[in-house]
Amino acid sequence: MDKQILSGITVLDLTRVFCGPYCTMWLGDMGAKIIKIEQPNVGDDTRMWGPTQNGASAFFANLNRNKYGVTLNLKSPEGKEMFLKMVEQADVVVENYRPGVMKKMGLNYEELRKVNPRIIYASASGFGTYGPYSDQPGYDIVAQAMSGIMSLTGHKGGPPTRVGSSIADASSGINLVVGILAALYAREHTGEGQEIEIALVDSVVGLTTVENMRYFATGKVAERNGNHYALLSPYGSYRGKDKDFIIGCGNQKLYELLCNNVLKRPELITDPRFLTVVDRAANDDEMQIEVEKWSTTVTAKEAIELLHANGIPAGPLNDTSDVVVDEHIAGAREMFPEVEHPIVGKLKGTAVPIKFSDTPTTIRKPSPLLGEDNAAIYGEMLGLDEVQLAQLKEKKII
Amino acid sequence: MDKQILSGITVLDLTRVFCGPYCTMWLGDMGAKIIKIEQPNVGDDTRMWGPTQNGASAFFANLNRNKYGVTLNLKSPEGKEMFLKMVEQADVVVENYRPGVMKKMGLNYEELRKVNPRIIYASASGFGTYGPYSDQPGYDIVAQAMSGIMSLTGHKGGPPTRVGSSIADASSGINLVVGILAALYAREHTGEGQEIEIALVDSVVGLTTVENMRYFATGKVAERNGNHYALLSPYGSYRGKDKDFIIGCGNQKLYELLCNNVLKRPELITDPRFLTVVDRAANDDEMQIEVEKWSTTVTAKEAIELLHANGIPAGPLNDTSDVVVDEHIAGAREMFPEVEHPIVGKLKGTAVPIKFSDTPTTIRKPSPLLGEDNAAIYGEMLGLDEVQLAQLKEKKII
Repeated sequence: MDKQILSGITVLDLTRVFCGPYCTMWLGDMGAKIIKIEQPNVGDDTRMWGPTQNGASAFFANLNRNKYGVTLNLKSPEGKEMFLKMVEQADVVVENYRPGVMKKMGLNYEELRKVNPRIIYASASGFGTYGPYSDQPGYDIVAQAMSGIMSLTGHKGGPPTRVGSSIADASSGINLVVGILAALYAREHTGEGQEIEIALVDSVVGLTTVENMRYFATGKVAERNGNHYALLSPYGSYRGKDKDFIIGCGNQKLYELLCNNVLKRPELITDPRFLTVVDRAANDDEMQIEVEKWSTTVTAKEAIELLHANGIPAGPLNDTSDVVVDEHIAGAREMFPEVEHPIVGKLKGTAVPIKFSDTPTTIRKPSPLLGEDNAAIYGEMLGLDEVQLAQLKEKKII
Repeated sequence: MDKQILSGITVLDLTRVFCGPYCTMWLGDMGAKIIKIEQPNVGDDTRMWGPTQNGASAFFANLNRNKYGVTLNLKSPEGKEMFLKMVEQADVVVENYRPGVMKKMGLNYEELRKVNPRIIYASASGFGTYGPYSDQPGYDIVAQAMSGIMSLTGHKGGPPTRVGSSIADASSGINLVVGILAALYAREHTGEGQEIEIALVDSVVGLTTVENMRYFATGKVAERNGNHYALLSPYGSYRGKDKDFIIGCGNQKLYELLCNNVLKRPELITDPRFLTVVDRAANDDEMQIEVEKWSTTVTAKEAIELLHANGIPAGPLNDTSDVVVDEHIAGAREMFPEVEHPIVGKLKGTAVPIKFSDTPTTIRKPSPLLGEDNAAIYGEMLGLDEVQLAQLKEKKII
């Protein structure tokens, strides 16, 4: 077998911005042939987004590695016909238009399956394809706000806070991957494709399963809790002599190790305020006072070393400049593979965070220029020659 | 075909706490038979975690629906032998022990594939199975801190902030699902399983791909940006007359609609501070002043309605109590299916946020009591009868 999971799988990628392109980047890293289809002369919005490197968008370059790029006007009858001929030869169509756009163009799942019943059709949108909000436009920030995750993030008494990465887009992109892989697996048994749809807001709601459960079980809305976690203690950031660091005591055994070997205060184990996980979580502020009696006497580095020596989860509060040179994350785990792009130049990307023993993910090409692969892809899939391509370009179809 | 994607797939689930159980919950919702294997008399740590409902852990109940529960002492020779006989009949083994624990028990992938070369072996741990930190214990909070996501989350000038849900655990659980589905698909072609491994910290680093790119392209560490996003504007939370709400203008067209039809100030389109996406992002504070000249004159509800009428992404800042009764999220999208458990009683869960047209996810049973399915599973898979089971229980093997 070719050493890539999705070798032989062709994905027609109509996605733009983040969520959809992030999905197809994962599929591409897993070996699928990704054909990114963009509007002639315009392309993905993010081709105009900052930051740039050598004048070209690093944002676009970062999310569109391993993809071929073609232009196609799907609103023209000829463009539509070309697309349908490609659907016949493809395995997956992914799009993140607003619901209804594909139908208006006559390119919704019901139409595509007529030309290829094996096609898997995957879409992502702010609110999904059905339900009262389905025609509302949605970006990551709206999904973060409406899912409740912002209400859970932030310091006690402070305002709700955006998660510092576009968690709705990213998690929705990964959920699209789950849906597509599941449908590919199912197709092995049924011989048929199906439709998968993802809503950004649903994806974030899925991530807050524990907080939702807490509300259902207690009837109480969780307070924002800064750097601590309502259900465990000591578990969060603590002051060291020089800077803050993290302790994560997830169970009784770890707590006892902490009291005996690090705090050297075994009496805290039987202190009625801290007897069980539930007690400690309820008295987290007092727990913090006790922990910081020790932690403020040592540097963060010393604290972490001592905690690790006792098998207690601990670590530094890294910023991006720390992460990208970290010997474990950047080094051993190879999370930042470099890609060389003809305009952008060398730019490190972020790897798909899954390690497969037999079929590792790979990066084989940089992001495409707009329409870069028109000749190659349309030649190969539709048998079009240079003259025909020139005519299509003249008519603004490609 | 049975209307479940993973019907016929058997998963031996050695996972505890959140990340692993979240993965197997997804696989179970997709139709796989999940056999949760717990330590006799002890079980998953989270059986002791709050909150409780009718005296039993709602935390455990929430993440372990659709699973069968057996107890097994994997450290005993007989327990190990029983496990290996089950591996012969299984498709997937998932575990989230610390790296090395399974090897010490002689149950690592290399051993399991000897009895079943089709077995897919998936593990998650704080830092993965290799690299200098691989033997460090890791919980969600440590992965959040070391991945950099905390450094990106929080208000300008404020401290790094924990994402209000356990994003490292949840995203790692989903990444495990991706890996397992990919390996199941690959197995259709190769006839063989493989090993997949996930590190909590890698998973969060994967979610921050855009922020990593920004650092690589600019050499600058992103500032925490509160409720706004560094690359777009207006895009974040804005003050209404009564409360804050969200506007998400992701592109030029939406910005022009906002100026013309909502702010009624077309001159802002050609204002040199706000000409392009990049300009607006650079002058986000001034943009906010201009937007709030309008937004503070209307209620959040009025603002959102007007924005929606003009096709501009907008929405409220929901807390959990809003989300769980939302007519779209809880209603049409059915994100909170109810499960009835013999002790916990009725408790709503959170659905897998993927909608499959042909093979929808389902919930078929509540979480198991400790060892609840010993007789059924060991009878079926190992042919053990009541007398044998009683002996195994006597010897503390089950």
